[in-house]
Amino acid sequence: MNFASDNVYGVDPRILQAMVDANSRLTDVSYCHDDGSREVEARLSQIFEKDVKAFLVVNGTGANSLALSAICPTFGGVFCHEMSHINTDECNCPELFMGGGKLITMPGKDAKLTPAVFAEKLSQFGHGEHGAKPCALSITSATELGTVYTPAEIKALADVAKPRGMKVHMDGARFANALVSLGCTPAEMTWKAGVDVLSFGGTKNGGMILEAVVFFDTALAEDFLYRRKRTGQLVSKGRFLSAQMLAYLQDDVWLPNARRANTLAQTLAKGMQASNRVRLTTPVEANEIFAIMPRKLFDALQAKGANFYDWPWDGLADDEVHCRFVVSFATPAEHVDRFLQLIRETA
Amino acid sequence: MNFASDNVYGVDPRILQAMVDANSRLTDVSYCHDDGSREVEARLSQIFEKDVKAFLVVNGTGANSLALSAICPTFGGVFCHEMSHINTDECNCPELFMGGGKLITMPGKDAKLTPAVFAEKLSQFGHGEHGAKPCALSITSATELGTVYTPAEIKALADVAKPRGMKVHMDGARFANALVSLGCTPAEMTWKAGVDVLSFGGTKNGGMILEAVVFFDTALAEDFLYRRKRTGQLVSKGRFLSAQMLAYLQDDVWLPNARRANTLAQTLAKGMQASNRVRLTTPVEANEIFAIMPRKLFDALQAKGANFYDWPWDGLADDEVHCRFVVSFATPAEHVDRFLQLIRETA
Amino acid sequence: MNFASDNVYGVDPRILQAMVDANSRLTDVSYCHDDGSREVEARLSQIFEKDVKAFLVVNGTGANSLALSAICPTFGGVFCHEMSHINTDECNCPELFMGGGKLITMPGKDAKLTPAVFAEKLSQFGHGEHGAKPCALSITSATELGTVYTPAEIKALADVAKPRGMKVHMDGARFANALVSLGCTPAEMTWKAGVDVLSFGGTKNGGMILEAVVFFDTALAEDFLYRRKRTGQLVSKGRFLSAQMLAYLQDDVWLPNARRANTLAQTLAKGMQASNRVRLTTPVEANEIFAIMPRKLFDALQAKGANFYDWPWDGLADDEVHCRFVVSFATPAEHVDRFLQLIRETA
Amino acid sequence: MNFASDNVYGVDPRILQAMVDANSRLTDVSYCHDDGSREVEARLSQIFEKDVKAFLVVNGTGANSLALSAICPTFGGVFCHEMSHINTDECNCPELFMGGGKLITMPGKDAKLTPAVFAEKLSQFGHGEHGAKPCALSITSATELGTVYTPAEIKALADVAKPRGMKVHMDGARFANALVSLGCTPAEMTWKAGVDVLSFGGTKNGGMILEAVVFFDTALAEDFLYRRKRTGQLVSKGRFLSAQMLAYLQDDVWLPNARRANTLAQTLAKGMQASNRVRLTTPVEANEIFAIMPRKLFDALQAKGANFYDWPWDGLADDEVHCRFVVSFATPAEHVDRFLQLIRETA
Repeated sequence: MNFASDNVYGVDPRILQAMVDANSRLTDVSYCHDDGSREVEARLSQIFEKDVKAFLVVNGTGANSLALSAICPTFGGVFCHEMSHINTDECNCPELFMGGGKLITMPGKDAKLTPAVFAEKLSQFGHGEHGAKPCALSITSATELGTVYTPAEIKALADVAKPRGMKVHMDGARFANALVSLGCTPAEMTWKAGVDVLSFGGTKNGGMILEAVVFFDTALAEDFLYRRKRTGQLVSKGRFLSAQMLAYLQDDVWLPNARRANTLAQTLAKGMQASNRVRLTTPVEANEIFAIMPRKLFDALQAKGANFYDWPWDGLADDEVHCRFVVSFATPAEHVDRFLQLIRETA
Repeated sequence: MNFASDNVYGVDPRILQAMVDANSRLTDVSYCHDDGSREVEARLSQIFEKDVKAFLVVNGTGANSLALSAICPTFGGVFCHEMSHINTDECNCPELFMGGGKLITMPGKDAKLTPAVFAEKLSQFGHGEHGAKPCALSITSATELGTVYTPAEIKALADVAKPRGMKVHMDGARFANALVSLGCTPAEMTWKAGVDVLSFGGTKNGGMILEAVVFFDTALAEDFLYRRKRTGQLVSKGRFLSAQMLAYLQDDVWLPNARRANTLAQTLAKGMQASNRVRLTTPVEANEIFAIMPRKLFDALQAKGANFYDWPWDGLADDEVHCRFVVSFATPAEHVDRFLQLIRETA
Repeated sequence: MNFASDNVYGVDPRILQAMVDANSRLTDVSYCHDDGSREVEARLSQIFEKDVKAFLVVNGTGANSLALSAICPTFGGVFCHEMSHINTDECNCPELFMGGGKLITMPGKDAKLTPAVFAEKLSQFGHGEHGAKPCALSITSATELGTVYTPAEIKALADVAKPRGMKVHMDGARFANALVSLGCTPAEMTWKAGVDVLSFGGTKNGGMILEAVVFFDTALAEDFLYRRKRTGQLVSKGRFLSAQMLAYLQDDVWLPNARRANTLAQTLAKGMQASNRVRLTTPVEANEIFAIMPRKLFDALQAKGANFYDWPWDGLADDEVHCRFVVSFATPAEHVDRFLQLIRETA
Repeated sequence: MNFASDNVYGVDPRILQAMVDANSRLTDVSYCHDDGSREVEARLSQIFEKDVKAFLVVNGTGANSLALSAICPTFGGVFCHEMSHINTDECNCPELFMGGGKLITMPGKDAKLTPAVFAEKLSQFGHGEHGAKPCALSITSATELGTVYTPAEIKALADVAKPRGMKVHMDGARFANALVSLGCTPAEMTWKAGVDVLSFGGTKNGGMILEAVVFFDTALAEDFLYRRKRTGQLVSKGRFLSAQMLAYLQDDVWLPNARRANTLAQTLAKGMQASNRVRLTTPVEANEIFAIMPRKLFDALQAKGANFYDWPWDGLADDEVHCRFVVSFATPAEHVDRFLQLIRETA
């Protein structure tokens, strides 16, 4: 019973098979100039209903940091949620790849920003060159608390950013989970709502190394080949990345995988609530659950082999623990059942 | 009547004269290897009752950013107040000089950090390499709201930092104002309370270009000559910096200048309060005043030639303005009188 | 017939199978804290006859740039050959990861440095902080021209560096090819000769993403987890990297693969020389050949489907081309035969 | 008798007086937004016969590094002479301010680049993102060996750079010395020959802190206020910089100062040659002399109080020293006479 992270699970067998198949070609063009990489761009253009520029990279941290480097100069500022992955879990990599660009953080319920808070924060940047130049907004969907921005919410934020000449980035490490949760099109969730560049993540949803930076504003992609190389995010045997992405982007892989994880998360969340011993702190809109339980229960569950993290939360009682549960494309349904059974048994 | 900044005033005539005198030597060793630079180090060692390493630099932003670069690696984090100058007014320079080191900000009344808030923030950094490595604490005294840390307060913060191997930096852009406010020794305000490296500022208190980085933990100064050069903070005709600092560090210059500014700030603050139309938001402990006044009064005073800034503040009524007043070593006393008179006249 | 690069070939089937096998575990610890990563370190310690610290990273550029960042501060200089991969083929990534550290280049026959040239270059760095601080020497073996440093040659260079407190890095993108060429032990080729940190590459010799940074001076590895994360070189599903490396480091994989490539390169080189139409410019000591041929022959071979690069060279006649040929672990022997046949046929 | 550097001399009394005068204003706008800074821009526009954007900065290293940061992105390359100050004497500051941009060095007689060498070097950058993107050319005039590029020579170099979209920077630390040597107009020496941005230095020619970045291609100056601030090159009491520059740019200050130094350098050079014991290695075209003398003479002159540096040079005999002599705006003529006398006396 491992609900610690979607990263602890392996690779979707169909994606793995595609990598094995890719090896059947004796040789292929290296450094992501292979035909497969071009097909990836074409397929993503089709999915997003727009001619995009897409670049395969190595991981989510690289995708985010590179995307930001393309929209925020060294003297710029990127506005983001204080809980955002770029701020808390990428150990200064965004700042490094931007060459010193600054993350400017804001609070917000359910790990989401609001136009009001964003506008207020922006208003503090009126003293010219003494503060960072406001250059970009970065939002995450699904967020770090497993919630999802609606297209309307994204547009409302973009409407604050765009008149100031700022660009909008979306960290889509769990893009598919957000998408199937919303039931909208990929285009509606991104460029139609004002997103200029997307970190399109597939690793958590079945890939091995499966991340792309996708530019809707393709002018921003100029020189991105240099950016990717100079940050060490270019892989020599690129066919193994493009093979993964092409296998992933089949309709019966990426979307069903995400749907499955989201559905199972709902089952888990409802089961926990039904136990009356766990209370959710955050709406469950994708494949993550955040909830408070008694410390005794936490300890008992861990002792019995359930693996999940405690997670910081304000205003906890001393005998409570706030926890994160992640359900992945590959989490066995019976693990959810067994876990709920365990809660019931742990009186 | 200019209360906008201590930077709008010129240079103390005694310091300017020292620069003129320095020009009487036909030649001198360049690049801050002159005898004067060595004398500065000796004089600061005397003042701080400790053998320090001291380096003349170009400005406060350079001093802070360089000091931090010596105590925080590229993957490290510097904990500081959200209002700190390094966070709000140095346009990513600290991040640049650190090579990507991150500022981790905290709130705190009167622009001061407390051990509790600091410890709580630190507790969020337990997930290893995913977050920045906690490496340094940076405090400012006098703070950005003109308040002052007592030696005991500094020690209490250092006591949180030191057991984790973190170093302590003080931004002393208004060091003299804080010092005379406290009435303690320079040593008590710094290394005896746990400060490892100090940005020792004199520009605001009478200098032209008058800033030094002072290391109490002298091991940290290793290779600092390289650091200063590679950040463009090394001046070729260094004699004109050392001459300023030597003139400044005479007992009847730096301390009386600060005392004068602080005293005049008290006069101004008390006069404003007595008017019953202005209310202080922050204790006046150095040479700055923060206060709320009716917008009508603000407009009237500005119209009559008083120059001072509005300043962000939470919870203002629509018809109120929060303002900053800075009194410098050179602010004429009659300007304070005239300004208070103006308030009285503006009914 | 593809002699363009070792990167155009796929993955050794035994390594690919190990990746497939790694997927059979439902879950595993993520972010390279898996047992496999620890086994890699143990296995490398055994191979190098020394307790090493070893870190799996994403590519050779990352390995080199990270290794250098651990031995050269932002104000430092890394001395290297002007043809070195870090200087010509990594698009500023070393400079980025070092935070601005500088590559200081030197010429040298067969892409190798000599102690005399190195000492002469070092002697130009006597003007203190005005120039970069000499901090590291970086050598490549096998070199960018397919030659190999003997242990004695490495030691002679290290003997210049070490008395100045400089550290020694080896770019071992083709480490195995150099090792089997020399017939010495891995220890003799590295730390026994003065190497402090090694980029240990396996991608070109049969891996998919198969690179490690190996510290012989383990004190230098302090905080390397942070360095790897903050440069985007940390992979979440680390088991697929450790599985590759463990499969690779079996005695009957990495060494035979390299031996095979080297041997075939000898066959190719001798065949070309025997044709009397191609002359070698550089000794063939590993799996690369550098040679000059008439442009007519070059064009004819390319037209008939032979894929190999022209390569810059001084002093070419107008009707000549200098070429690089790379033979990999997977190059079919019959491709070599067919290519030599083609030369003979192209009269 | 100090011929070590133009930096060992003090400040032109007229410039110093202007600084004293600037102090007579009780207050002035800070952070280089003063009227004086605007006048500097207007005056430079007049001098260069073009509407320029001009920014006062702190030193030559800062001016060069900032200028390059405006024309070379983090993944770019700046082509320059291997002896250039940015490469040998600015301790990685250009790389820092560019965020990792790379200096790509070339040899050249008399410290000057030729179009042929430049074009040849450029031809090595045809492998896409693996190498730095060629973005800028940087030349120095007067050069590090005291020679001067003619406008035609500059144009010939720019003609190689411009068709590739590269920008051209000139390091003009000794701009005035080059200008009076050429006898052309400032415009002819710069933008009319293809220079886009100039480091305009006055410190060596009579200033205290007297450097500006001057943009002829004013679109490049966008956001330069942010760049200057975030690199610590912005001074708070800016009036003391603008006062210096305005005093310097009077026709009877900057040009006569340079003319005087150049003329005295000719006197010194001719006197040394006449001695038959010293031979010039480089044409004397500005205020520097490079020459070889017997080591015995070198030692004797130094022992008698002459202060000048030995300087690296290829192909010296064991008993020879290569030396640099710098004559400044303030070098007393009698020092030159006395030095020549010393040579004659030291038989």
